[in-house]
Amino acid sequence: MRPIGVFDSGIGGLTVVREIFRILPEEPVLFFGDTARLPYGPKSAETVTRFSRQITRFLLARNVRCVVVACNTASSAALPVLERESPVPVLGVIAPGARAAARETRSGVIGVIGTRGTVASGAYERALQAIDPALRVVSEACPLLVPLVEEGWADHPVTEQVVRQYLDPLLRRSIDTLILGCTHFPVLRDVIGKVAGEGVVIVDAARETACALREALPPGEPASKGAPSHRFLVTDVPHRFREEAELFLGAPVERVERVETEQLEGICQE
Amino acid sequence: MRPIGVFDSGIGGLTVVREIFRILPEEPVLFFGDTARLPYGPKSAETVTRFSRQITRFLLARNVRCVVVACNTASSAALPVLERESPVPVLGVIAPGARAAARETRSGVIGVIGTRGTVASGAYERALQAIDPALRVVSEACPLLVPLVEEGWADHPVTEQVVRQYLDPLLRRSIDTLILGCTHFPVLRDVIGKVAGEGVVIVDAARETACALREALPPGEPASKGAPSHRFLVTDVPHRFREEAELFLGAPVERVERVETEQLEGICQE
Repeated sequence: MRPIGVFDSGIGGLTVVREIFRILPEEPVLFFGDTARLPYGPKSAETVTRFSRQITRFLLARNVRCVVVACNTASSAALPVLERESPVPVLGVIAPGARAAARETRSGVIGVIGTRGTVASGAYERALQAIDPALRVVSEACPLLVPLVEEGWADHPVTEQVVRQYLDPLLRRSIDTLILGCTHFPVLRDVIGKVAGEGVVIVDAARETACALREALPPGEPASKGAPSHRFLVTDVPHRFREEAELFLGAPVERVERVETEQLEGICQE
Repeated sequence: MRPIGVFDSGIGGLTVVREIFRILPEEPVLFFGDTARLPYGPKSAETVTRFSRQITRFLLARNVRCVVVACNTASSAALPVLERESPVPVLGVIAPGARAAARETRSGVIGVIGTRGTVASGAYERALQAIDPALRVVSEACPLLVPLVEEGWADHPVTEQVVRQYLDPLLRRSIDTLILGCTHFPVLRDVIGKVAGEGVVIVDAARETACALREALPPGEPASKGAPSHRFLVTDVPHRFREEAELFLGAPVERVERVETEQLEGICQE
């Protein structure tokens, strides 16, 4: 059975995999985390696109059924290029998150938080305004939230202070819906919800992406018998990934293999 | 005139370049910042060594007089390998920082703060105990300090709180000397000094490395006439580097050029 290819700059994309496991429990997943070159968030669209094309090419060579770009930064920088180059469907996290936010908002003022790259790209603004040009979008780059999650400080008082500072300009603009536009942020859902207050609906792009995948999946594959077999590929050493991955996946990670970045560079020239 | 090669995972190493400019004002510098693959701090010694070997090989092909590993993580992971493979002197930041700390301490209890990679390597412990086996060393990984510097929050109250939490276990052990074992940390020197208190001498490995370079520099090069010409090479787009670099270098950065990571991968097999 051909697997669903999923990639991310590192481990955040496992929040998407977690939802895929929940919503599509029969589907085998081939996950690729570019842990040697992470993070993508502070890097240029050009570099993020180059890395994303390499990984997509690599996954296609492994005969994936479709490619899920489980990284907001890569989705906002590279999705059109990847779609053009791929013979199988390519799904990003931006459009599903934007659709859910447009559905939820009452006031029409939507907040977006993400990495520098995602916010600078304006990808959520474009997606939301394509749905309804009357929607107003307020975005804020929150680069410290990723390292706070990775340090395991989701419940630390410092994290609440940082979230408060980042959300302040959005709350002043009276958003009623907030898109978690980075796959690390679902780990901070509680503190973000607390700071945003009850009047703000939180949209988790990871969950919405898994729902969109169920709709987009090409038909015709027979359901597997028994539990599907998942594989995880990373560019840095596997054991670190295994240790940190559980926080995002909510389950132990098995079958982690290393892919050298040398195997990726140049793959798009072949 | 052959340049001094200096490399870092990104921009932190410019604190070393700043000291080289001050102490060796006639020397041209060729700086390499691996901005497409940064940071090295949270990555494995194996991956950091592979990237460091590629960059050293690249700098050697540019005919550098010596190689300064202006990154604590790369110095602790890769220095012995780089020294073995290089025909010109290779200088890391660990030994100079350790020598200065051993000179300064009265109580013999030395603190070290750095990235996860640097602290996990035990490189400062080994260097200090090679100088004097009676020295006691207490280390703490401080992964959040790098993103706080890069967010421009050096003077933010959150940064002081984070520094307080990280230094607490060191101060309880009554260190009288503290090594800034990451090239980003000199930017936080004021807040670190405030939290550590007057009784603790702060050792800036960047400054000590520039002094060690003056001693180690192979003789025989004629002094240049007029101001030397410096070059900066980066693996992500040059304009971002240029914008952020001034914080670390304290001067505008000119002549920034891009090197594709594709040019690096495979260079060690050639």
